[in-house]
Amino acid sequence: MAFPVRTCALVGRFEDPRIAETLSALAAHLSARGVRVLIEHDSHLPAPIAGVERVPAGAIPERADLVIAIGGDGTLLYAARLVARHDVPLLGINRGRLGFLTDVMPQNMTAAVDAAIAGELDRDSRPLLSARLRAAGGQVAQAFALNDVVMQKRDTGRTLDFETRINHNYVNTHDGDGIIVASPTGSTAYALSCGGPILEPHLPVLVIAPICAHTLSDRPIVVSADSLIEVTLLERPDTRAQVSCDGALLGALAPGDGLEITTAPERVTLLHPKGHDYYRLLRSKLHWGRGSFER
Amino acid sequence: MAFPVRTCALVGRFEDPRIAETLSALAAHLSARGVRVLIEHDSHLPAPIAGVERVPAGAIPERADLVIAIGGDGTLLYAARLVARHDVPLLGINRGRLGFLTDVMPQNMTAAVDAAIAGELDRDSRPLLSARLRAAGGQVAQAFALNDVVMQKRDTGRTLDFETRINHNYVNTHDGDGIIVASPTGSTAYALSCGGPILEPHLPVLVIAPICAHTLSDRPIVVSADSLIEVTLLERPDTRAQVSCDGALLGALAPGDGLEITTAPERVTLLHPKGHDYYRLLRSKLHWGRGSFER
Amino acid sequence: MAFPVRTCALVGRFEDPRIAETLSALAAHLSARGVRVLIEHDSHLPAPIAGVERVPAGAIPERADLVIAIGGDGTLLYAARLVARHDVPLLGINRGRLGFLTDVMPQNMTAAVDAAIAGELDRDSRPLLSARLRAAGGQVAQAFALNDVVMQKRDTGRTLDFETRINHNYVNTHDGDGIIVASPTGSTAYALSCGGPILEPHLPVLVIAPICAHTLSDRPIVVSADSLIEVTLLERPDTRAQVSCDGALLGALAPGDGLEITTAPERVTLLHPKGHDYYRLLRSKLHWGRGSFER
Amino acid sequence: MAFPVRTCALVGRFEDPRIAETLSALAAHLSARGVRVLIEHDSHLPAPIAGVERVPAGAIPERADLVIAIGGDGTLLYAARLVARHDVPLLGINRGRLGFLTDVMPQNMTAAVDAAIAGELDRDSRPLLSARLRAAGGQVAQAFALNDVVMQKRDTGRTLDFETRINHNYVNTHDGDGIIVASPTGSTAYALSCGGPILEPHLPVLVIAPICAHTLSDRPIVVSADSLIEVTLLERPDTRAQVSCDGALLGALAPGDGLEITTAPERVTLLHPKGHDYYRLLRSKLHWGRGSFER
Repeated sequence: MAFPVRTCALVGRFEDPRIAETLSALAAHLSARGVRVLIEHDSHLPAPIAGVERVPAGAIPERADLVIAIGGDGTLLYAARLVARHDVPLLGINRGRLGFLTDVMPQNMTAAVDAAIAGELDRDSRPLLSARLRAAGGQVAQAFALNDVVMQKRDTGRTLDFETRINHNYVNTHDGDGIIVASPTGSTAYALSCGGPILEPHLPVLVIAPICAHTLSDRPIVVSADSLIEVTLLERPDTRAQVSCDGALLGALAPGDGLEITTAPERVTLLHPKGHDYYRLLRSKLHWGRGSFER
Repeated sequence: MAFPVRTCALVGRFEDPRIAETLSALAAHLSARGVRVLIEHDSHLPAPIAGVERVPAGAIPERADLVIAIGGDGTLLYAARLVARHDVPLLGINRGRLGFLTDVMPQNMTAAVDAAIAGELDRDSRPLLSARLRAAGGQVAQAFALNDVVMQKRDTGRTLDFETRINHNYVNTHDGDGIIVASPTGSTAYALSCGGPILEPHLPVLVIAPICAHTLSDRPIVVSADSLIEVTLLERPDTRAQVSCDGALLGALAPGDGLEITTAPERVTLLHPKGHDYYRLLRSKLHWGRGSFER
Repeated sequence: MAFPVRTCALVGRFEDPRIAETLSALAAHLSARGVRVLIEHDSHLPAPIAGVERVPAGAIPERADLVIAIGGDGTLLYAARLVARHDVPLLGINRGRLGFLTDVMPQNMTAAVDAAIAGELDRDSRPLLSARLRAAGGQVAQAFALNDVVMQKRDTGRTLDFETRINHNYVNTHDGDGIIVASPTGSTAYALSCGGPILEPHLPVLVIAPICAHTLSDRPIVVSADSLIEVTLLERPDTRAQVSCDGALLGALAPGDGLEITTAPERVTLLHPKGHDYYRLLRSKLHWGRGSFER
Repeated sequence: MAFPVRTCALVGRFEDPRIAETLSALAAHLSARGVRVLIEHDSHLPAPIAGVERVPAGAIPERADLVIAIGGDGTLLYAARLVARHDVPLLGINRGRLGFLTDVMPQNMTAAVDAAIAGELDRDSRPLLSARLRAAGGQVAQAFALNDVVMQKRDTGRTLDFETRINHNYVNTHDGDGIIVASPTGSTAYALSCGGPILEPHLPVLVIAPICAHTLSDRPIVVSADSLIEVTLLERPDTRAQVSCDGALLGALAPGDGLEITTAPERVTLLHPKGHDYYRLLRSKLHWGRGSFER
């Protein structure tokens, strides 16, 4: 990455008029500052926007010095996977409500973008997970995840039986809707809804959280980020499972197939306004203290 | 129903050899006592069994005085839906491990069946839920559930946004994997895995339990069994949901469609050995007291 | 009770100047409308208030047609126990933040009080629990609770071993910090913090919720309001336990002593402004929907 | 420490005849192997035991090469605090049921002790927490904890209001029964009952778990083991709190007093039989897999 920023990619669900409006304002702002603006080739825009270059998704990590995700955390997760192999820094601007990852509010957008192109934001390096799905037939699918890798049932009311191993040591046989392996970044996303703990963002750990486990003592486990985590689906009538990374489908998992999760060598860099405070973000997102002293 | 029993239907996944073996033993036992034995027309048997009459599924509730479910709780749930409109009594014989519903162990099977055909077992009447899925186009699908009606996401990593109403009063807007409406009978099944309470079997109540709710204060609510519960899916990109009754698919739910759940006028009668103790069953199934005084 | 109201008691922690101020304003308002105002004999007032008669606590339920609790839910719980045997209606005015029971906001106070003395508020009859603590020596202590009866450890880091029975049937042997028996009214108080469900206020049920149970499958159980619930503390080194009703100490519990909880014949009447909506109160108190659609 | 072991201290609640019996057997066994046996000066023995030297508790860490704790995890926790400043290795022999820390079963006791005195057991070094209670008046109390430091309410039904800080950064204002700071070793003890995760024993982290938090989104947080965690009690009527380390009282905490928790420089060494498997222990203690495949 070379600051000051000369080329910036904007990512979002631009078919949503509110997000297209922000895109339009940001594109004009960046052009006025001499920054080239890229968007993905197949973006759907409600109306044409001047000064924006359409490029294939694959060209974004190669050409952009900065990627701005406009929308919710889902958009930033998409952008993170897009740049995973190049570590282009990411800035997340939310529309409407504060996100854990899109933590710049619209009213502070221009100041944050100006600081970003001047290289003046705090850089926050986060680990990525790597998921490998190894089908019995030999094919392998791989994907990155900033938040979490999830194996869960699909299409059916049947729960799954599956085994977990850590570094080839047998851990447990589970019966339930599936399992989440989350990074610290993802600990406040889906894993939190499944009873997982909050993990401070820079700890060298992962959390393995069962989804709606049949056995009530089947609780979340925090393990080293160096771990190789293996999930094996067991044979059972009507078993159908799938694996997703940050909510994007990686593939189906059949009994006998293997799913392996590790921390990737690749990382993602999030940009935050100076003075970013993780616990203030938690307090705001989780409505902490509302009942008592913060009003 | 007219006791003593003259005709008995046996229900199970007979393609499983262990279950077919129990079927065979029971069929011989019943025939020797002069009881006619029915099984479903399309049952897959590993080997022919003498003295068993194959009939269409629809004929079972009309002809049988007693239905014996052999297998796990899933088999008894299937049998309960089969006889829902006729209230033929059900006896559940488990294979392998104790079930909440299939509470006769294999070693006590013959004694329990003899008592059942003599009309000497305890009768335990349980309510059924009725689910109505009303598509925007006007079609209606209906099904019964002994345990629970579940609306949940399918095929995708996206959570669902949906509203709940009780007797037409707005309750909450939820964001999560879905929602369970469980009878007391179903409170120890899927709802328990989602943080729901145990409900004593004969209370006039239901529990509404969100599945992996995004909002941590979105907790299970116990409501009157007389309630009309409505679930409305909200518009959101990539929303895909389905409804199932006791794990059997009722249909897909699209934004704008309505799902209504009530207690049905129909009921199901479970037969238990004399001296059946609900709390002993709970202690056994939930490993209660293991850590302390029961060894 | 005879409406329109001629005598009204005001209850609160008047040593708090903000609450004394509300007392003063309300007393003047009531006197101006010809209503006699009582407060407890030993109330601590920061400054004298005109037109207020001090009476013994025991005289309040006999003389007052209406009791107004000013403060938080704790104050209303105190007032409920005060009037338990006479069922004088209660109005709760909160100071600062909305309560489940003190649901009139200060800005609506005068209108609500005018409606109360005119007999125009909605009457909401709630059950009371009765707790009986029977010491081995024969002494008996009894108290009412609107929210909950709690048995828990005191003074020490040791958990308690105890047994529960419902209608003399053994339920479970527990190891943990204690146990809560909550009415529907109390289901949104302490029991909710211990993983209990929300119970609609008028259901004929109670919830039994273990506190920090050692056994993870030791989950809350919803039982009939007609139940006799018995808790027996088991012998163990350093065991020290106490029982409280709505947070007020009933007494210490030693191994061998018995604690019995039932629904009392007595009830309490809460007054609510017209159009009171239980689920709106829940949404507000639990910050429901904040993350999604209510902003 | 110098292996082979020449002096061994035995620790337990010897007033319990079953534990005294094990003490007697072990003392004879050790004497026969030429190992000197120490017990605490004020131990209560049901009957005299030959070949046992009574010494002050303070002499044990100075003279013993090995400490054997006989009983439950509570006994081993006591022994760990006893030797905290000297890191004498600890072997835990349970009586009755398997513990997380006392993981040698009685039937394997002699073989394990022989291996221990030959220096052939696996050494497992675990961190200790250090708690400092700083009263407003200036006095300081300090203690170690292998499992957890707990601040909680005492004597009363009132919940506590308190603030937490990590490395002097404000985290949250809590309302509830108290808070637990647990090491990985303690994550399977009290913190697990309060919704905390399981932490692998050698991770450089701690978990901060609120006890029965009033705010449902007040969830356990996993933080770096390097953290300075501060808990400050807030002023509120009837607030009474106490701090304990591994269940042993450190002192009372009043509003204005400070509680600081860090990882201590001192550590404890647990001895395990060769082939010790942490996840097998978890499976056994938590009844994992019982419902499904392990019978």
